[in-house]
Amino acid sequence: MDIFIEPIGKLVNEFSKLPGVGKKTAQRYAYKIIDMDESEARAFADAIIGVKRKVRYCKICGNFTEEDTCGICRTRDKEIICVVKEPKDVAAIEKLREFKGVYHVLHGVIDPLSGVGPNDIRIRELLARINEGNVKEVIVATNPDVSGDATAMYIAKLVKPLDVTVTRLSRGIPVGSEIEFTDDVTLSRAFIERNKL
Amino acid sequence: MDIFIEPIGKLVNEFSKLPGVGKKTAQRYAYKIIDMDESEARAFADAIIGVKRKVRYCKICGNFTEEDTCGICRTRDKEIICVVKEPKDVAAIEKLREFKGVYHVLHGVIDPLSGVGPNDIRIRELLARINEGNVKEVIVATNPDVSGDATAMYIAKLVKPLDVTVTRLSRGIPVGSEIEFTDDVTLSRAFIERNKL
Repeated sequence: MDIFIEPIGKLVNEFSKLPGVGKKTAQRYAYKIIDMDESEARAFADAIIGVKRKVRYCKICGNFTEEDTCGICRTRDKEIICVVKEPKDVAAIEKLREFKGVYHVLHGVIDPLSGVGPNDIRIRELLARINEGNVKEVIVATNPDVSGDATAMYIAKLVKPLDVTVTRLSRGIPVGSEIEFTDDVTLSRAFIERNKL
Repeated sequence: MDIFIEPIGKLVNEFSKLPGVGKKTAQRYAYKIIDMDESEARAFADAIIGVKRKVRYCKICGNFTEEDTCGICRTRDKEIICVVKEPKDVAAIEKLREFKGVYHVLHGVIDPLSGVGPNDIRIRELLARINEGNVKEVIVATNPDVSGDATAMYIAKLVKPLDVTVTRLSRGIPVGSEIEFTDDVTLSRAFIERNKL
């Protein structure tokens, strides 16, 4: 005999599909749902369905949107484009409320080992935007890892000849951390990219 | 402007209602849902609705069931009743696959500070079961805290006169842990409840 009756087992199984959620945590979540009112649980289920039904990608930048184009593309200054790997990176940068330009979501990075080449991500669309508009700077904000760096280099090579400044987010010691505990790669990068005072 | 468009914000908000889930984790879960196929997301939503629609409480023991009575009450020996606070405690004990008796879920414990008295939990139903059946032992498996202890004492007082053995799960040093790091209350309890070798 199973420990859980079928509907509970099913829900535990679904929660286990979420990132970082093991059996134990999935159980806790399932119990929480059982404790909810019918209407609360309905709202939860509707939110899941709603996200799949309503969320699309912006035709211009590739970010999440409910319309054809996203709110950022519709309202912001288009002289500076920040290039990111995924829509969640847009959310992380928007949270700062500092960047006032627009985005371009690549939906991936160049990664030959996984069979992802330049034509598999939205680089062509980026070049089209630059050719059409009055773009002054492209900030490449891909992750500071091998494929993020490779993608940044590739984009720089294509975009620089178009008379557009290409920049990359600085790498170095995280603010508030300690030199003693900084990993070697980051520390040596902090030396290479050191700034004049 | 919000960081998230409305359907994503809604889903993040729903995930935030789960125990121990903050904004960041809720976001990760929401992104996972966005990445799912339509059919996967539908199955997830259905599991949530399903659990609310199908899960009821067993008329006899108060555990989760899809029928009038649960599989344990229908098939097991009824001479030993294990009394627990919540259905999830049944799952924890069933996982051991050692206890062969039946359960009685109180759906709470006596806790005067929260206004929960003996009549607010399923103690009356426990006494009725004992009066009706051929019960030999009641194992009180409420949590080893103030209200769990109080509830155990209360049940013992009522059940012992009915010629039924009342026992309580042992408290002591957790298996595999070290005396040095055991908290004072547990350590002193381990002295009080020490066993002859």
